Amino acid sequence: MRPSGRAVDQAREVKIIRHFTSHAEGSVLVCFGNTQVICTASVEKGVPRWLQGKGQGWITAEYGMLPRSTHTRNRREATSGKQGGRTLEIQRLIGRSLRAAIDLKKLGEFTITLDCDVIQADGGTRTASITGACVALVDALRSLQLNKSIKTDPFKQFVASVSVGMYKGEAVLDLDYPEDSNCETDMNVVMTQEGKFIEVQGTAEGVAFSRDEMDAMLELAEKGCRELLVIQQQALQAL
Amino acid sequence: MRPSGRAVDQAREVKIIRHFTSHAEGSVLVCFGNTQVICTASVEKGVPRWLQGKGQGWITAEYGMLPRSTHTRNRREATSGKQGGRTLEIQRLIGRSLRAAIDLKKLGEFTITLDCDVIQADGGTRTASITGACVALVDALRSLQLNKSIKTDPFKQFVASVSVGMYKGEAVLDLDYPEDSNCETDMNVVMTQEGKFIEVQGTAEGVAFSRDEMDAMLELAEKGCRELLVIQQQALQAL
Amino acid sequence: MRPSGRAVDQAREVKIIRHFTSHAEGSVLVCFGNTQVICTASVEKGVPRWLQGKGQGWITAEYGMLPRSTHTRNRREATSGKQGGRTLEIQRLIGRSLRAAIDLKKLGEFTITLDCDVIQADGGTRTASITGACVALVDALRSLQLNKSIKTDPFKQFVASVSVGMYKGEAVLDLDYPEDSNCETDMNVVMTQEGKFIEVQGTAEGVAFSRDEMDAMLELAEKGCRELLVIQQQALQAL
Amino acid sequence: MRPSGRAVDQAREVKIIRHFTSHAEGSVLVCFGNTQVICTASVEKGVPRWLQGKGQGWITAEYGMLPRSTHTRNRREATSGKQGGRTLEIQRLIGRSLRAAIDLKKLGEFTITLDCDVIQADGGTRTASITGACVALVDALRSLQLNKSIKTDPFKQFVASVSVGMYKGEAVLDLDYPEDSNCETDMNVVMTQEGKFIEVQGTAEGVAFSRDEMDAMLELAEKGCRELLVIQQQALQAL
Amino acid sequence: MRPSGRAVDQAREVKIIRHFTSHAEGSVLVCFGNTQVICTASVEKGVPRWLQGKGQGWITAEYGMLPRSTHTRNRREATSGKQGGRTLEIQRLIGRSLRAAIDLKKLGEFTITLDCDVIQADGGTRTASITGACVALVDALRSLQLNKSIKTDPFKQFVASVSVGMYKGEAVLDLDYPEDSNCETDMNVVMTQEGKFIEVQGTAEGVAFSRDEMDAMLELAEKGCRELLVIQQQALQAL
Amino acid sequence: MRPSGRAVDQAREVKIIRHFTSHAEGSVLVCFGNTQVICTASVEKGVPRWLQGKGQGWITAEYGMLPRSTHTRNRREATSGKQGGRTLEIQRLIGRSLRAAIDLKKLGEFTITLDCDVIQADGGTRTASITGACVALVDALRSLQLNKSIKTDPFKQFVASVSVGMYKGEAVLDLDYPEDSNCETDMNVVMTQEGKFIEVQGTAEGVAFSRDEMDAMLELAEKGCRELLVIQQQALQAL
Repeated sequence: MRPSGRAVDQAREVKIIRHFTSHAEGSVLVCFGNTQVICTASVEKGVPRWLQGKGQGWITAEYGMLPRSTHTRNRREATSGKQGGRTLEIQRLIGRSLRAAIDLKKLGEFTITLDCDVIQADGGTRTASITGACVALVDALRSLQLNKSIKTDPFKQFVASVSVGMYKGEAVLDLDYPEDSNCETDMNVVMTQEGKFIEVQGTAEGVAFSRDEMDAMLELAEKGCRELLVIQQQALQAL
Repeated sequence: MRPSGRAVDQAREVKIIRHFTSHAEGSVLVCFGNTQVICTASVEKGVPRWLQGKGQGWITAEYGMLPRSTHTRNRREATSGKQGGRTLEIQRLIGRSLRAAIDLKKLGEFTITLDCDVIQADGGTRTASITGACVALVDALRSLQLNKSIKTDPFKQFVASVSVGMYKGEAVLDLDYPEDSNCETDMNVVMTQEGKFIEVQGTAEGVAFSRDEMDAMLELAEKGCRELLVIQQQALQAL
Repeated sequence: MRPSGRAVDQAREVKIIRHFTSHAEGSVLVCFGNTQVICTASVEKGVPRWLQGKGQGWITAEYGMLPRSTHTRNRREATSGKQGGRTLEIQRLIGRSLRAAIDLKKLGEFTITLDCDVIQADGGTRTASITGACVALVDALRSLQLNKSIKTDPFKQFVASVSVGMYKGEAVLDLDYPEDSNCETDMNVVMTQEGKFIEVQGTAEGVAFSRDEMDAMLELAEKGCRELLVIQQQALQAL
Repeated sequence: MRPSGRAVDQAREVKIIRHFTSHAEGSVLVCFGNTQVICTASVEKGVPRWLQGKGQGWITAEYGMLPRSTHTRNRREATSGKQGGRTLEIQRLIGRSLRAAIDLKKLGEFTITLDCDVIQADGGTRTASITGACVALVDALRSLQLNKSIKTDPFKQFVASVSVGMYKGEAVLDLDYPEDSNCETDMNVVMTQEGKFIEVQGTAEGVAFSRDEMDAMLELAEKGCRELLVIQQQALQAL
Repeated sequence: MRPSGRAVDQAREVKIIRHFTSHAEGSVLVCFGNTQVICTASVEKGVPRWLQGKGQGWITAEYGMLPRSTHTRNRREATSGKQGGRTLEIQRLIGRSLRAAIDLKKLGEFTITLDCDVIQADGGTRTASITGACVALVDALRSLQLNKSIKTDPFKQFVASVSVGMYKGEAVLDLDYPEDSNCETDMNVVMTQEGKFIEVQGTAEGVAFSRDEMDAMLELAEKGCRELLVIQQQALQAL
Repeated sequence: MRPSGRAVDQAREVKIIRHFTSHAEGSVLVCFGNTQVICTASVEKGVPRWLQGKGQGWITAEYGMLPRSTHTRNRREATSGKQGGRTLEIQRLIGRSLRAAIDLKKLGEFTITLDCDVIQADGGTRTASITGACVALVDALRSLQLNKSIKTDPFKQFVASVSVGMYKGEAVLDLDYPEDSNCETDMNVVMTQEGKFIEVQGTAEGVAFSRDEMDAMLELAEKGCRELLVIQQQALQAL
């Protein structure tokens, strides 16, 4: 039934390659099937002005797509003079999600910026970004501990994210682009190791969804996130 | 337990005043307690370029807050040179929600712009905006039918929206500002007359929420939306 | 002769509703006939950088129109990325006019921002804004005195504003939109309680105006402003 | 009494040098004492979109100051990303004033842009700009007639402009920078050959002005404009 | 003498990986040592407005750096609202250089956009971009010929680019970041297969360079470009 | 062979008029034939933030063209909201070139801004700007020494600039607009008194250039710059 031939509860193959580029404190290439995102975590001393003197750190995120990461070329946001509404919405989501992974008090007055840049898009770029950024964030925290900038580990919990949706009347896990552009409902879920939710964002694209359908989608999302949480931790076992 | 003394499943008093200003085809002042939003529906001939020649119409929305609708003055977005991420996110949400109320094919090549301008904010401005804009939209459609611009009614269904959240460990309905700024989870729900969902956006602010908490919040949201759907229809019974 | 049937020296009905919204230190809805403007006065500690350390305060103004305050919808300035020339011109005028009402030295290092947002436009939005903002300003100064932030009253004098013009060869008072868009000359006058002028801005729209016509218009403006100055003070007699 | 030693009704020496640069259809250097402005009139085929098909032309104006035309360097507007409120206000004034000089119907579908760029500022840049732009406009109209682009002369009347003000309690003509920055009232007047007004813009800077003071200023303005109208016509007698 | 231990006339190892991402008509990862740039060539029907109807095509380029491609994080240009001067300068250079590789007449009314996005920076990003973009361009032209959009091959000649400089008094080839930030002169050269120059841009950073030094640098640049031209052609021998 | 009838190694007549406007510390009108540029040097206390506390000064440049300095009117950059790529490239070049004339340490914490505004363009505006700005800079340094703001002269050497190119197969000196828009190669050279280069920027416009052609062009550039260096020094001999 699915264009890719996957079972309804089958996610795409996930790869997480750490140390992908050399300058960032954390740098990950994350692949959800053909969707590929470079996630870097950059540590800077200091915090935004409105947090100064509160003895805590900050996590923020920025998101971008290379102009030709998509089927047809999209205008470069730097030339159009501003980030679009979709971009702002996604980077706000990534930032909120990753702040849930951290005890900002323990981080101290450091800012960590998570840059998620899509180099190839095939659906699920925001969920891949969150999942990959979490790994980059752990690497950045390790570097802060290694150079003794912080004493206690501010990491609280892993967060992972996956999309689910109603496609041709059935709940499916991890939509790729052909599904994403034809589904009735699209839902992005961010979940912690404890199985609790950070974000649930479901949007009907044309056909409203019932409470039963919502339940079916949430079930799949929990399964998908659990699998991702394992993959994240495996990736981090190597040095 | 609630700062306002309301019961956990009690929404604020809702007022919908039609014909609030004189120029727009639909013009509504909607009040959710102390939250007050002017919603106008403006009809214009023609559709955006990317829809031209497809024989359908378009619904879009814009959202703004008067600088002193809030406790402390916010910078006017027109002077800062761009709409912020929160504004863009909200107006995209309003637009998507109201497009679900309409058969765009039957609308024909008209664009209806829903402007939601908050004149007094006390929590729930986006849910009040959606609820009020739906009434303004109906008035605009009536004017199109009255002057014979369209032959069949493109209206499909009412949509209403309310916020729910986890506040001090309990699920509560229709958060006002003191609750909104202190809750553990904030969820905005957009529902149709048939009890189906257009949007469910739940965000943990600090503490992740469980599946049970999500269910409790959804229950309240259904109750709140049903009440709003009645108020919308009552408001429209007068001329 | 006038579309509204008014006598040439007859202004529209004026209403000034104080405490219109709840958060601002001063908040007024002012109506010149069908023209309706929300004027808020917001007090903030501190002054712009170029005034720091000079021991004086500052009054500034911002002006906006809701997109559908007009007959046809205007583009929202926040989406077009900047305030237009007309907007900037009007808000500079409002700011200059109200600074004449105040002894900035006595205000101390506070900034009061006057936001004038038009919710319904029918000609004369800038004159209604100045007239209403003056009342909002008085309320804001009262709040500063009530909470002991300032000791002496910085208020010097009331200022009121009205438009006059040459319409079908005759001088008329307080032009509404049908007159404004067809007049030969449009003149906005800002006057103090002592009958002196703060601003006189006359513009020929097509036909130049003679010295005699100018004198006739100024006479009407004085009459109109005197009436407004009474209404302002009556509005402020209540608490 | 005046810093320059001039009599109260004495304007500065005025120079109008035509053909100042070579590319524009009209190009004038105008000097009001030490104030120097390059005014060019550029003819382009076509009119703005909102005038298309109405069989008339358009006159528009743009104003700028070289960054170091002033005592201390001002930020270049091209680098700050927008024209300031003062600039927009002045160029709108120049455009309105010069449109009064022309029968736009007779111009046909041409747009003439008047660029007024201040290379040295010493007060009165807007009045010098209007006075100089009028001469550049006549030269541009001559070139249109020479190359047979238009058949009848669209020129209706000369317009000239001068500033007057209240300085140390007396009405004075043609304020230079030391006066302009210390005067009680500043008034800019645009007048036609027939002695009628196109614009009268009086602004109190600190002290409100009485009706008598206004009359005294208008008298001086009439004298000043009459002198300028002679100088404009003399400048145009040469080829 | 060189920080990397390379001989003065020794370039870094160069890798060119074609088909690096899947959507673009041409997609190359080019590595000059640790400098890594993704170069995509995107084909679109039509040409910019100023070229319409001239029966020719257009080649344009855009350049960007991921925020953490550098040692310390750079601000994302999409958030700062504009491309900086360095970016604009580089993308103009890339565009000019690649237009020299093509007969625009034979291309017909197609636009090819070359996006060069630096994912890791270690000096020489602009020269790597030009060298890689040329290979991506050839792949894009092949796809146009394969799908019969064009009949004759518009490719004229390969262009390659390398930097040279004066470092500690000696001419060196292909500067990496430690050299680039400490050299006396930096020169970027773009050369064709025939050994002719498209661009020579030499800039003294502190110490002016003599004619003899210029000759020495040009010699090295010719050697470096010749080597790159071989590598480009080898990369294109595979399918 | 040249449209102007000049010999291939003959530059245009050069004029340098000092004290052209009155406010700037250095103010020069420079003419390369019909190309006319106003160059002002403005001294301000302080340095950009990134240089603070390093005990050195800064030289920066800005470039602009009056809208009708060209054959057809160009859009004013202040109205289009940003400086174009060409403008940014040129002002970066002017700044780099003039920094080579100065010992920034000896300047102390002053910033000198060189504004180069083209009032009439006929090719070579950037080379005229550099040549004229150097003279304005010397005047500004003299004023700093006169008022004892600096003790030692920070001036190191004169820099001058000229364009050369390949036109109809021959190397020519100092291209005017008809040559510039039809040449095969355009090269801008900035040279010091010692005959060393600060910048060499050669760009093939259509036809690549050989090493021999490059040598021929450099020879002419040296001749041209030597002549300009004499004219600069002569201009500065007067007070």
